[in-house]
Amino acid sequence: MIFCIFFAPHYGLIKKTASMKHLAIGIDLGGTNLKGVIMEQDGACRHLTRVPTEADKGGQHILDTIIRLIVRLIEKEGKSNQICGVGIGTPGFVDEDGTVIGGAENLPGWKGTQLLAPVRKRFGLPAAAANDVTAMALAEARFGAGQGVRNMVCLALGTGIGGGIVLDGRLYKGSHGMAGELGHIVVETNGIQCTCGLKGCAERYGSATGIADIARQMAEQTSQVTALVRAVRRNPAKITSKTVYDYVKKQDAVALQVHETASEMLARVCGIICNALSPDRIILGGGVMKAGQVIIDEVVRRLPNHCWEAIADRTEIVCAQLSDNAGVMGAAALVFEEMPH
Amino acid sequence: MIFCIFFAPHYGLIKKTASMKHLAIGIDLGGTNLKGVIMEQDGACRHLTRVPTEADKGGQHILDTIIRLIVRLIEKEGKSNQICGVGIGTPGFVDEDGTVIGGAENLPGWKGTQLLAPVRKRFGLPAAAANDVTAMALAEARFGAGQGVRNMVCLALGTGIGGGIVLDGRLYKGSHGMAGELGHIVVETNGIQCTCGLKGCAERYGSATGIADIARQMAEQTSQVTALVRAVRRNPAKITSKTVYDYVKKQDAVALQVHETASEMLARVCGIICNALSPDRIILGGGVMKAGQVIIDEVVRRLPNHCWEAIADRTEIVCAQLSDNAGVMGAAALVFEEMPH
Repeated sequence: MIFCIFFAPHYGLIKKTASMKHLAIGIDLGGTNLKGVIMEQDGACRHLTRVPTEADKGGQHILDTIIRLIVRLIEKEGKSNQICGVGIGTPGFVDEDGTVIGGAENLPGWKGTQLLAPVRKRFGLPAAAANDVTAMALAEARFGAGQGVRNMVCLALGTGIGGGIVLDGRLYKGSHGMAGELGHIVVETNGIQCTCGLKGCAERYGSATGIADIARQMAEQTSQVTALVRAVRRNPAKITSKTVYDYVKKQDAVALQVHETASEMLARVCGIICNALSPDRIILGGGVMKAGQVIIDEVVRRLPNHCWEAIADRTEIVCAQLSDNAGVMGAAALVFEEMPH
Repeated sequence: MIFCIFFAPHYGLIKKTASMKHLAIGIDLGGTNLKGVIMEQDGACRHLTRVPTEADKGGQHILDTIIRLIVRLIEKEGKSNQICGVGIGTPGFVDEDGTVIGGAENLPGWKGTQLLAPVRKRFGLPAAAANDVTAMALAEARFGAGQGVRNMVCLALGTGIGGGIVLDGRLYKGSHGMAGELGHIVVETNGIQCTCGLKGCAERYGSATGIADIARQMAEQTSQVTALVRAVRRNPAKITSKTVYDYVKKQDAVALQVHETASEMLARVCGIICNALSPDRIILGGGVMKAGQVIIDEVVRRLPNHCWEAIADRTEIVCAQLSDNAGVMGAAALVFEEMPH
């Protein structure tokens, strides 16, 4: 006879007891702001706090700010005996032991930083870390658009495109925390040059930056002088993905072309994800998705052109639900995910 | 206090007891042959048996042949009280409940077949099923080139290209058993038309069929009349990937071009796998890999051109180790993987 007891907090199999610690601190590091929260196991958040990252002051400064933010959160909570750990989401790759090993170019001096040791030492609490979009995917899985499904992939359409993967109900970080670089999947052979060195990466077309760049490029080349084209020509630097989607709403012909290009490339990357992982659900989030259902509809329409139809038929593509707080909630959720508590 | 006991046979944590059933039957269904084996938990195989599939006689006939093959294996073993279940690997997608829901075009009448109920009914044994390459990946993970790593992806370069995925030490089948269609990842925009309906799928370039097709195409177009080109022109239908690699050994210039094209496309699909999943190891197997290290070397050389270099640096690309028996061993391994025993 062999005992088989699975420890799976996310399946809700564990009953809380009075003595159980049920709060986690989440920290989400962005290029502009550092966010912190104290979160309950069911996703309820309190003391949400935001401070400037001041990335230009270097890695040690960021780490000091994180420590101060945790101090402040514990002060706000008033007591720390219910806090079972600290989770940190950061841009870049985070190795098993919590060292940032690369991929965080907009944070000078951040590569090489050991994230967890200082937190553990200062607070005597367990600590966990992951890529910020990996954390975001975890939050969507537990508290947002991924609830109730076993396999889901999250694409965060922001300045770039980040990815997060939850498979068989568990967060998948990959070896050395490097999985989910879905924005750098090549969707157009010899396509637009990407900052990563490759050409034709999905994020060159489907991120906020990519969409604005394509709008500028089309406005330069087109003979149709639509309202969007005039706006671009007036002040190309001011164009954002939001501008483009404001004109999509007005059925601007060139805006619609930009939208179709972005959606086509997103459908291609979703098709690759489908053929590789056949998830139940792909969740699109990030700033670009403030445009909402119009992107989902076009990606869904094009998806069967880019993977097995049998898989496309069984894969839902939906909007993220947690918006701006997904990152910080996911960071806190890492604690419940990874630690005995 | 919460008890945390993980049941992980593949980590070897479970000690055998005298009363424990430790044998599994594996069945590997191919277009030409059905293979069966009785396997111990450590991968030791006995009574390996092969019978013709006779695919043209339809799905019910195949199922009857599988039943007869299992009967024969149990007879050979002499007793069944140590057998804890039957695992079946089949082409196509196999749903949770063991129904073939598509993707097995070379087996007419196979789609819709319920694989497990007849086996359970006839033998009173637990039964499990999976896609054949998924099973192969499991065998490589447990007994072959994937031993000792946590995350691995297997590509079987045969008539097509199949894929199998083991993540965080567990077989990943995807929703509805449809994950791992890695041969149909598009690696060339508007590339060669694939049987699946897409264009530019990896298997159009890197499978045995793809390599032979490219050799024929190059022989038709080239002005270099090398020995390979003469061989193709003499009898195009006789060319296989083995022919091509025999000429690669002789440094035939056109054979080397075919090899470079195939390796480039394999490197692209490996790059996508790296960026998405960042596995510890990618294992290349199947008939094409009888050519061996020459393909590995070229794919490894090209990989950093197709994903983050930090990921490429940390991903090993190696040859499969179990050759022709990986499928049937993996089918048997499904039993140990999926069932309490």
